[in-house]
Amino acid sequence: MRTPARWITTLSIGALVALSHAASAETADEILRRSPANAWSQIDPGQMLIMTLADKQRIVIQLAPDFAPRHIDNIRKLALAHWWDSGAIERSQDNYVVQWRGPVMHPPLPEGVSASPPAEYERAFGIQPFLPLPYPDAYASKTGYIRSWPVGTDGEKVWLTHCYGMIGVARDMPPDTGDGTELYAVNGQAPRQLDRNIALVGRVIAGMDALSALPRGKAPLGFYKSDTHMPAIESVRLASELPPAEQPRFQVMRTASDSFKNYIRARANRSETFFVRPAAGLDVCNAPIPIREEPARHL
Amino acid sequence: MRTPARWITTLSIGALVALSHAASAETADEILRRSPANAWSQIDPGQMLIMTLADKQRIVIQLAPDFAPRHIDNIRKLALAHWWDSGAIERSQDNYVVQWRGPVMHPPLPEGVSASPPAEYERAFGIQPFLPLPYPDAYASKTGYIRSWPVGTDGEKVWLTHCYGMIGVARDMPPDTGDGTELYAVNGQAPRQLDRNIALVGRVIAGMDALSALPRGKAPLGFYKSDTHMPAIESVRLASELPPAEQPRFQVMRTASDSFKNYIRARANRSETFFVRPAAGLDVCNAPIPIREEPARHL
Repeated sequence: MRTPARWITTLSIGALVALSHAASAETADEILRRSPANAWSQIDPGQMLIMTLADKQRIVIQLAPDFAPRHIDNIRKLALAHWWDSGAIERSQDNYVVQWRGPVMHPPLPEGVSASPPAEYERAFGIQPFLPLPYPDAYASKTGYIRSWPVGTDGEKVWLTHCYGMIGVARDMPPDTGDGTELYAVNGQAPRQLDRNIALVGRVIAGMDALSALPRGKAPLGFYKSDTHMPAIESVRLASELPPAEQPRFQVMRTASDSFKNYIRARANRSETFFVRPAAGLDVCNAPIPIREEPARHL
Repeated sequence: MRTPARWITTLSIGALVALSHAASAETADEILRRSPANAWSQIDPGQMLIMTLADKQRIVIQLAPDFAPRHIDNIRKLALAHWWDSGAIERSQDNYVVQWRGPVMHPPLPEGVSASPPAEYERAFGIQPFLPLPYPDAYASKTGYIRSWPVGTDGEKVWLTHCYGMIGVARDMPPDTGDGTELYAVNGQAPRQLDRNIALVGRVIAGMDALSALPRGKAPLGFYKSDTHMPAIESVRLASELPPAEQPRFQVMRTASDSFKNYIRARANRSETFFVRPAAGLDVCNAPIPIREEPARHL
């Protein structure tokens, strides 16, 4: 039995869907501008890292505990121990990755940090809902989005994809999986060959240009030739460690929302005047997940 | 009737093919190292631009006259007229493009430069041989390589793909196609939605990091907020304009060679120890075309 309140809600959603069908030429920007508040989800400050470089540039990272919980448990503990303070960006390889670490002279791993977590390269296909992309992909039998993250799947397993700005755990050779002390961010064409070969743990949600515009390292693999070339890290903090008024507040679009479905459709079929021939296609790494920053609470 | 000489040649090729099958675990690096001289083709200095920035960083560009001859005729004439000298990089948008132009106060277009060349966004599928990639793509019914260039095709037309480092002709709204005075280079995830919407004219073959590491512009679309922020261009020259001893000498791998086929196979099925699960897939924009510089003649 419908209550009036539910009836109103249903009508609103129906009207929204009708509107989005009628306005098939809506651009991605328009869809974002008109998206309702409930299309957005607050990012948990306990799953956000703030990296501040010595030059005061700030990089904000969202972690992905649904996909690599043990690695992220390590990373959160390392952040709480201030592991990366006085660390450095040691590598900037063009069209590949930027990579950072703590100080060379570092203490033992903090209590509870696993030196070799399990290989969280994929997980059972069970975090619903999944929004599949209707376009083929060279690497996965299907791609799409789960809980705001870009993924590939073979129907049984699901894994995060190495899109621009995604963050992974650097490691040596197998069966090593990396302890989380060295992380990298993708700074070019999605190196999808790394999917399921490494633990992806999150993404840069603000300040990516502070990493992507770094001078490339001149040693092999883009490592800097000496410590003096390495951009220094002042600190890395969990956002939840900061006083509430100083915590950054970010929202990510729910990939299960109608707004996101319309956004994806608009990105695949660009209706802006500039386009003479819309692609009618979309790569999972070629549609940045909408993320927006709210004003700080004390402003 | 086989002459002894032809028989020897045939045997050599047969031996090479047998070798490459036996060594299926050869890495891309090994394939490049062992590639025979005839797997490489000299890049014509008449189709190379050298852009020197005010800070003396050098960017070398290879033009693609097979794909956009009229635009490239414009660009060559503009270079010969020194159009971009004292110009500027006006835009650096993260994960999209870097864009440059000549001086704001510029002379009329040089003699013979078309103000609105035809829309060379695709061409008849006729420049053989075509090496198809056996993996699906979100944007084209097939992708692959023609004469050292990454392409998409629908079987009738063929077009260059917007891979990292590819260079296109900035334009305004249709039916404008851009006169070639403003060019851009892709500095992030391949913006394949631009394929067939814009004239691609070449690629950066050296010095891409001088463009990709530029600070991002803070105005909309990554434009710099004022001229004082714009990296200045000292000069842009056709390599063939330089004295022979100063011309850079580059070679590109023939995409019709056995070495390139093996290289692509190795990139799609990585056999390096690091990989626990080779992708068995490859995006057309995720295998940089091998290019190498020869020592300058006067060294």
